[in-house]
Amino acid sequence: MAFPGFWVVFEGADGVGKTTQVELLAARLRSAAGGSREVLTTREPGGTPLGVELRQAIMHGDHVAPRAEALLYAADRAHHIATLVRPALEAGAVVLQDRYLDSSVVYQGGARGLGDEVERISRWATEGLLPDVTVVLDMEPDASRMSRDLDRVERETIAKAAQMRAAFLERAALDPGRYAVVDAARSVEAVHASVVEAVERAMGRRDGLPLEPWGTP
Amino acid sequence: MAFPGFWVVFEGADGVGKTTQVELLAARLRSAAGGSREVLTTREPGGTPLGVELRQAIMHGDHVAPRAEALLYAADRAHHIATLVRPALEAGAVVLQDRYLDSSVVYQGGARGLGDEVERISRWATEGLLPDVTVVLDMEPDASRMSRDLDRVERETIAKAAQMRAAFLERAALDPGRYAVVDAARSVEAVHASVVEAVERAMGRRDGLPLEPWGTP
Repeated sequence: MAFPGFWVVFEGADGVGKTTQVELLAARLRSAAGGSREVLTTREPGGTPLGVELRQAIMHGDHVAPRAEALLYAADRAHHIATLVRPALEAGAVVLQDRYLDSSVVYQGGARGLGDEVERISRWATEGLLPDVTVVLDMEPDASRMSRDLDRVERETIAKAAQMRAAFLERAALDPGRYAVVDAARSVEAVHASVVEAVERAMGRRDGLPLEPWGTP
Repeated sequence: MAFPGFWVVFEGADGVGKTTQVELLAARLRSAAGGSREVLTTREPGGTPLGVELRQAIMHGDHVAPRAEALLYAADRAHHIATLVRPALEAGAVVLQDRYLDSSVVYQGGARGLGDEVERISRWATEGLLPDVTVVLDMEPDASRMSRDLDRVERETIAKAAQMRAAFLERAALDPGRYAVVDAARSVEAVHASVVEAVERAMGRRDGLPLEPWGTP
């Protein structure tokens, strides 16, 4: 997978700031490269026209069977990688992506109890393509609301969020060379600085990568 | 998988008469059971409202990446089996279905070169549910047009159809207890008679199946 491009994935819970950090990093990369390097921002699910349709199907009014849901995410991913991400990386672009394989493993594989097969299917879907670095934006789930006044549903929601968080951190810990965990419970600027640092470190590890110098953060 | 229901799948090339044979068999079963037994006719892809959406997505104007296509068929299948077929079988219905796993294995696994993983994913999608009998409607691909006057595209189309046919027959030969190959190059009535015979034979193999007597064909 010696592509001339460079691929950064952002993972983490809803509302943790992934979209904002993707945009800030994209702006910085575009300016650092003096506009000479293509920077593509994208997302899963819904990064292609087909993906938008599938996203709607997943959100379908009817109940979607859990395995069908997992397969729809995998189909979205297969199409997204084959038609958008892989060609961009081959053309030398920097790709910044909101969610990828870890989200499926944590949400469908873990939370829905579908197990390791979810990861296996995703890897098949993408022919094993993995990002250069996955930035996990990490935050304690809604700590301010951890009081005794919560009702059962609220407590369950927070407990589930804590489980998801632990699952992301566990995946990151298993492969520290490919993951960077960034404390997202700080100002947008502070998080951005950590993201830039993590991405530059990862780019530095890829000797021979034809990247323009970026200057200092 | 000791369901009280009974499940018949029809496989074979486009245009070989699957829809007609499903309808004829359904009518016969309904009349044989005196209306006391539910007979459900269905299809893949597109046997559910979600499936209809997915079918449209598969036929999407854009090129759909081959692995995405295979995963969309699997998602359609997962939802169809979980929400329609399995509940019907559990409730004791006879389910007559147009296309199932073999079509995916033959078209996506074989013709598109995606290999054994297609079958593996389909089996995961359905939690391994297999029909009581799969009727392969078999016909030589458009033999009347096998002349020297064909252009390249026509020759390729026929060669591909011959490959698909061989793949269906090969799968049937590997598991004769679960498959019945019916010569579909005959009158609708003659094919129907063979289908009824094959289904009754398969039903007879399931001791203890609470089926009303059907009378003679």
